[in-house]
Amino acid sequence: MDFAYDETTVELQQRLLAFMDECVYPAEARFREEAESLDDRWGTPPVIEELKAEGRRRGLWNLFLPRTHEYGAGLTNLQYAPLAEITGRNPWIAPEAINCSAPDTGNMELLSLFGTEAQKERWLEPLLEGEIRSAFSMTEPEVASSDATNIATRIERDGDDYVINGRKWWTSGAMSPRCTLLIVMGVTDPDAHRYRRQSMILVPKDTPGVNIRRSTSLFGYDDGPHGGHAEIVYDNVRVPASNLLGEDGDGFRIAQERLGPGRIHHAMRAIGMAERALEMMCERTAQRSTFGRPIIEHGVVQRWISEARVRIEQVRLLVLKTAWLMDTVGNRGARIEVSAIKVAAPELATWVIDRAIQAHGGLGVAQDTLLPELYAVARILQIADGPDEVHHMAIARRESARYERVPVTN
Amino acid sequence: MDFAYDETTVELQQRLLAFMDECVYPAEARFREEAESLDDRWGTPPVIEELKAEGRRRGLWNLFLPRTHEYGAGLTNLQYAPLAEITGRNPWIAPEAINCSAPDTGNMELLSLFGTEAQKERWLEPLLEGEIRSAFSMTEPEVASSDATNIATRIERDGDDYVINGRKWWTSGAMSPRCTLLIVMGVTDPDAHRYRRQSMILVPKDTPGVNIRRSTSLFGYDDGPHGGHAEIVYDNVRVPASNLLGEDGDGFRIAQERLGPGRIHHAMRAIGMAERALEMMCERTAQRSTFGRPIIEHGVVQRWISEARVRIEQVRLLVLKTAWLMDTVGNRGARIEVSAIKVAAPELATWVIDRAIQAHGGLGVAQDTLLPELYAVARILQIADGPDEVHHMAIARRESARYERVPVTN
Amino acid sequence: MDFAYDETTVELQQRLLAFMDECVYPAEARFREEAESLDDRWGTPPVIEELKAEGRRRGLWNLFLPRTHEYGAGLTNLQYAPLAEITGRNPWIAPEAINCSAPDTGNMELLSLFGTEAQKERWLEPLLEGEIRSAFSMTEPEVASSDATNIATRIERDGDDYVINGRKWWTSGAMSPRCTLLIVMGVTDPDAHRYRRQSMILVPKDTPGVNIRRSTSLFGYDDGPHGGHAEIVYDNVRVPASNLLGEDGDGFRIAQERLGPGRIHHAMRAIGMAERALEMMCERTAQRSTFGRPIIEHGVVQRWISEARVRIEQVRLLVLKTAWLMDTVGNRGARIEVSAIKVAAPELATWVIDRAIQAHGGLGVAQDTLLPELYAVARILQIADGPDEVHHMAIARRESARYERVPVTN
Amino acid sequence: MDFAYDETTVELQQRLLAFMDECVYPAEARFREEAESLDDRWGTPPVIEELKAEGRRRGLWNLFLPRTHEYGAGLTNLQYAPLAEITGRNPWIAPEAINCSAPDTGNMELLSLFGTEAQKERWLEPLLEGEIRSAFSMTEPEVASSDATNIATRIERDGDDYVINGRKWWTSGAMSPRCTLLIVMGVTDPDAHRYRRQSMILVPKDTPGVNIRRSTSLFGYDDGPHGGHAEIVYDNVRVPASNLLGEDGDGFRIAQERLGPGRIHHAMRAIGMAERALEMMCERTAQRSTFGRPIIEHGVVQRWISEARVRIEQVRLLVLKTAWLMDTVGNRGARIEVSAIKVAAPELATWVIDRAIQAHGGLGVAQDTLLPELYAVARILQIADGPDEVHHMAIARRESARYERVPVTN
Repeated sequence: MDFAYDETTVELQQRLLAFMDECVYPAEARFREEAESLDDRWGTPPVIEELKAEGRRRGLWNLFLPRTHEYGAGLTNLQYAPLAEITGRNPWIAPEAINCSAPDTGNMELLSLFGTEAQKERWLEPLLEGEIRSAFSMTEPEVASSDATNIATRIERDGDDYVINGRKWWTSGAMSPRCTLLIVMGVTDPDAHRYRRQSMILVPKDTPGVNIRRSTSLFGYDDGPHGGHAEIVYDNVRVPASNLLGEDGDGFRIAQERLGPGRIHHAMRAIGMAERALEMMCERTAQRSTFGRPIIEHGVVQRWISEARVRIEQVRLLVLKTAWLMDTVGNRGARIEVSAIKVAAPELATWVIDRAIQAHGGLGVAQDTLLPELYAVARILQIADGPDEVHHMAIARRESARYERVPVTN
Repeated sequence: MDFAYDETTVELQQRLLAFMDECVYPAEARFREEAESLDDRWGTPPVIEELKAEGRRRGLWNLFLPRTHEYGAGLTNLQYAPLAEITGRNPWIAPEAINCSAPDTGNMELLSLFGTEAQKERWLEPLLEGEIRSAFSMTEPEVASSDATNIATRIERDGDDYVINGRKWWTSGAMSPRCTLLIVMGVTDPDAHRYRRQSMILVPKDTPGVNIRRSTSLFGYDDGPHGGHAEIVYDNVRVPASNLLGEDGDGFRIAQERLGPGRIHHAMRAIGMAERALEMMCERTAQRSTFGRPIIEHGVVQRWISEARVRIEQVRLLVLKTAWLMDTVGNRGARIEVSAIKVAAPELATWVIDRAIQAHGGLGVAQDTLLPELYAVARILQIADGPDEVHHMAIARRESARYERVPVTN
Repeated sequence: MDFAYDETTVELQQRLLAFMDECVYPAEARFREEAESLDDRWGTPPVIEELKAEGRRRGLWNLFLPRTHEYGAGLTNLQYAPLAEITGRNPWIAPEAINCSAPDTGNMELLSLFGTEAQKERWLEPLLEGEIRSAFSMTEPEVASSDATNIATRIERDGDDYVINGRKWWTSGAMSPRCTLLIVMGVTDPDAHRYRRQSMILVPKDTPGVNIRRSTSLFGYDDGPHGGHAEIVYDNVRVPASNLLGEDGDGFRIAQERLGPGRIHHAMRAIGMAERALEMMCERTAQRSTFGRPIIEHGVVQRWISEARVRIEQVRLLVLKTAWLMDTVGNRGARIEVSAIKVAAPELATWVIDRAIQAHGGLGVAQDTLLPELYAVARILQIADGPDEVHHMAIARRESARYERVPVTN
Repeated sequence: MDFAYDETTVELQQRLLAFMDECVYPAEARFREEAESLDDRWGTPPVIEELKAEGRRRGLWNLFLPRTHEYGAGLTNLQYAPLAEITGRNPWIAPEAINCSAPDTGNMELLSLFGTEAQKERWLEPLLEGEIRSAFSMTEPEVASSDATNIATRIERDGDDYVINGRKWWTSGAMSPRCTLLIVMGVTDPDAHRYRRQSMILVPKDTPGVNIRRSTSLFGYDDGPHGGHAEIVYDNVRVPASNLLGEDGDGFRIAQERLGPGRIHHAMRAIGMAERALEMMCERTAQRSTFGRPIIEHGVVQRWISEARVRIEQVRLLVLKTAWLMDTVGNRGARIEVSAIKVAAPELATWVIDRAIQAHGGLGVAQDTLLPELYAVARILQIADGPDEVHHMAIARRESARYERVPVTN
């Protein structure tokens, strides 16, 4: 057992921290201004492309793809985790600047694992280059998607094609003109075993019948520069059968595969968000005084700061251990730990950000700091990728599996 | 001791609930659409004026002004409280539809209590008629306003005038073209006792030197239809000395007077917000099922529902008792109870709304329900009118006042 | 609506507070010493009998029996509630000193409501006189009694007798030599509807076959002076059929009837326990200083004090309202409110006492203050009379009853 | 970074777990019975000596002393941590069975670090052999010991002796006849710098003037078999100057040194206590059913189980990392992390145990399970070795140290 980061990690942390200091933080104001003045609400602020070029130049690019893949930086999950955390300090700019932003990371991982050569050439390569973006179309407005067996969209074989019909929403990123690929999950065989009913299929966004209706917002934020969160009606959308990802009936299995790393990346970034909020809370309260003392010395604020520190340290260690498990026993073996950090990290982040908001007073909810939008980002993580309740249930089930139940009689 | 509402209250509750059912809820969609399509982001959706006419026609108008005032509906605080609660079920429409919306209510109360006849004629009457709106300009961006003695804006006597210099923000409503009056708090005598340094003055919004810079937002919501939250630079703003509200040095005292009822109104509405959120949580979870049962029957959701109910009942009673105290021993005598509900009601409301959001999944943070904006409204109440921490401190001080302290030696 | 106590209540409060100040608090040390030096661990400290005489002399006796009964002080629940609260300030001495201590109060209420004249004469009268004590034998060690239909003890008709077989525990008070009556709940008709299977029967403690095995303790406290908490094996215990309380099959209904007032009395006393703990916290922290200030002025301690005050006020109001409901709509009509205070009051009390313990440091867990034993008393209330979880479930069910469920399909 | 235990640790874990299964758990009932039937309430149940012999035979002895010491098993803190955790599963038997129980461990560590050869020979060797026990006499009833500078006991030089006067309590273990050594902290130079005023001195328990007054209890438990918690009056206690531990004025520094490892040992064991409670909660709820399902499948209980698991994993990792820091940067360098686990581990343990109690119903507070006494042990850890509030303050101070304060002006 050893709690020191290895040399590769330390070197990359320093490089990434320098990138944050020298490029990302200074670009925050410009990002906001450009986002507000774009003609296309779903367009990308030009500063992003500059930062991507710089990120790539500094050797910070596609860090997320684990060593087991043929692409990517060749890091382990354990090496990537502390880097993803750093990007969480500005989740709107930093991840994309190093081509490590959701949902593309998960999609690239799927293509890398399950894509055919043709699929990889057409979609994975431009994604790895940062030339296009992609979206993941799974959640549906009409059913409680927390139970994945509820999914109702149909993907039906018709000759050499599949025909897709259904309504999805929270297809994040799909409003962006840069997004050209949709990975859609739906039912191919309603009569199969509940975990073999679904498949995943690649749908070019410009396919006829792909009707983007609108974007849903997050606490008043539209996430415009990231392509919003599209509600899409798939109306007799026809794609060649070769667009299927993996085998027919693999949908549920692939989704599980995708969500593991996706969830850990979110958890890592959530810790970075918490660190940023804690830093802002300290900075602000050190610079204001009430009742004869700097606010940072008031007992209740001290307690917030201390609890934030103690909890951040704990969750970070659990995330790191989970990354290590994914490296050593595989995504499936680390499944319950992934559920654990999926609930622990966003809960931590929302709490720390909320306290930072409170410590900022009126400034804390306004557009002058990152805090309220950071709160929205952290809060949605308690819902996305399976609401916390589903993960708690999974953890409880594994914990209690080895205890023999009494027969129920009444 | 008697926990039954009196006849007047019951009759008005029924009338107001009918107004909600017949007019307010049906207008919610139209309000949103009109707000989005107005040319002026700070303009008022036409549906509001229709609702005001209807509210007035139904005898629901200016209910807030307590019996002790010469204007208003002649209700006690205890009678008004359950009515204000009902309006909290839609805080953007209902309060204004019956001319009971902040910050005008507080301002009308001040004018009624401290205004000269001329001031009343010019400002109070059109406010009571719902013809104009007003704003309260107290909080400053440069200092921690939670300690009111930090306020730095100057109001200096110059011959027959006062000249105002300073910067304020969170002057809610001031972006609206309907808002024509600003009540400004500032320092008239920096050498006086700390609670006698400040005064309040009436400033017509069109006075030269009133520079409205921008509006601050709330978690991404701009509160446009309510006139946003203005940041205002007062640059040598000159008004006649007769515009002073009350006496020179009365600012702190008047502010305390104003904040009492203001805080209780907010608390009442916060309970209505919590009730609405609980209702939405039940409706939604009864209509969705996961893992073979309606979500409303899952144990964790049942716990949320039960805790919400138990806590709502408690906070409502405390608010009602505080209203009764204000009626029987006066605003000053109920000061600590006002602090208690100021912290208890928004804490309750944010919690219930947050759980309702969670129970809604992705829908819960999107623009399709009131929930995320309701959350923002409840959350700011933990900051506005003195952050919770200041009120807790006041409560603790009174509680501990009767215990003799040990002399400190180290 | 009126939040002032009526004259009767105020007068009795003053009289009872005087009794606490003049008699109960001064007797605390003596009670403890006598309890420790008694030959019989389950005997009664002599000071109790003196206090009972004094309580009776002061007109403070049997206050608990509501106006609807032919016995008792003729108070309403609403009038008795604030008095019960006061006795919670020392739950080991004060309730018994005025003959208002559990489980006798509930038992007397049952006898008053359902007893035959002969039963009343034999049992109720000496109980009202404070000459004997009684116990309520319902919970069983082998089943989860939180689901009352689990109860397994059999009460079988045999000629003119009933024969009882089963094992009970947590039969509080039964270790005391003064306890001569056991009210036992068991199954008379296993084939009846689940709520008609059970009956209640009066069992003289000296009946052959009543085998008292031992007493269970509460966090290391044996509750000796109150007769402990007996585990009893009923081995072919034979009593005349006339000992049945109410009709055959009434057990569940009578239990519900009994638990309503019992729960509200516990809730009332829990508030008094919280008040006492808060008072002790303030006294202690005002008299100690660390880091250059009295502890009571440290921010975190101030927050505890403030939260305690805010929460106590709320729970008290909910208890009072519930008492008022019991008076106006009956025990059954107030059923859900009773569940609400059943969970709210002990949760409050354990929290306040826990913080008071923390504020006392090492003293807080030792035998020198009431705090640790007070904690144990409050903590068991979260388990006794149905664990909190069952009550939350009942509250959630009523709340959600009016929402129509979706049909479940998967 | 590597989260796998090393081979030594794994081997010792297995050996210790086997010892628990084969010896400790089977001895639990006998320990309780013997403790209850001893003539001397402060005597040691004979089973303890048998277990000590067996523990030693199995090579499980003095595991706690870190590698840097000349005595002990030569483990690092990181290696010892998971072993201490296991002993926490029965904190009354297991630690002592392997001679790793507080306060002896801390005292042995002090003697090893600061003792003279003569002191080591007289005290350390029999302690390492498990022949005697010792106590640490620091906390005082008259002052708030959470601020160590409050300590008032005097240790005055008088010729070749020191003379001790003062009153201490919570001198754990000192009631036991096996305890022969008291390490006493007191003021040698009241005029020195506040951190140089105090010294520590070795006092044989049978020295004239050592007046043991009584033992304080913990939530009704007297901790008899461990020698209780003595209140001691030191009345002109005279010991040779050679009994001073370290230099004159070193008291504060030595205390800090002692408390680091002491706190981490407590934290480790607290995790073991939480694991035991979680296991008991699962076992019990799997074997009972209510409302047609095993209790373990009720949603609220599942949430407790899941939260317990998620939190335990986190705290364990933080404790392990702290142990690693102590090994790599020293006790002083790990000071703030030690504070973090000092608050985190007992808070976790009390919460898990409390939920396990609730899940057990009436059984959960009675003497039939370890739970209520386990609760008492965990709860006192939030007070002992500096109350949580002091540690939170220290953590906040370090966190905020690098932020420049505003000058305070009002």
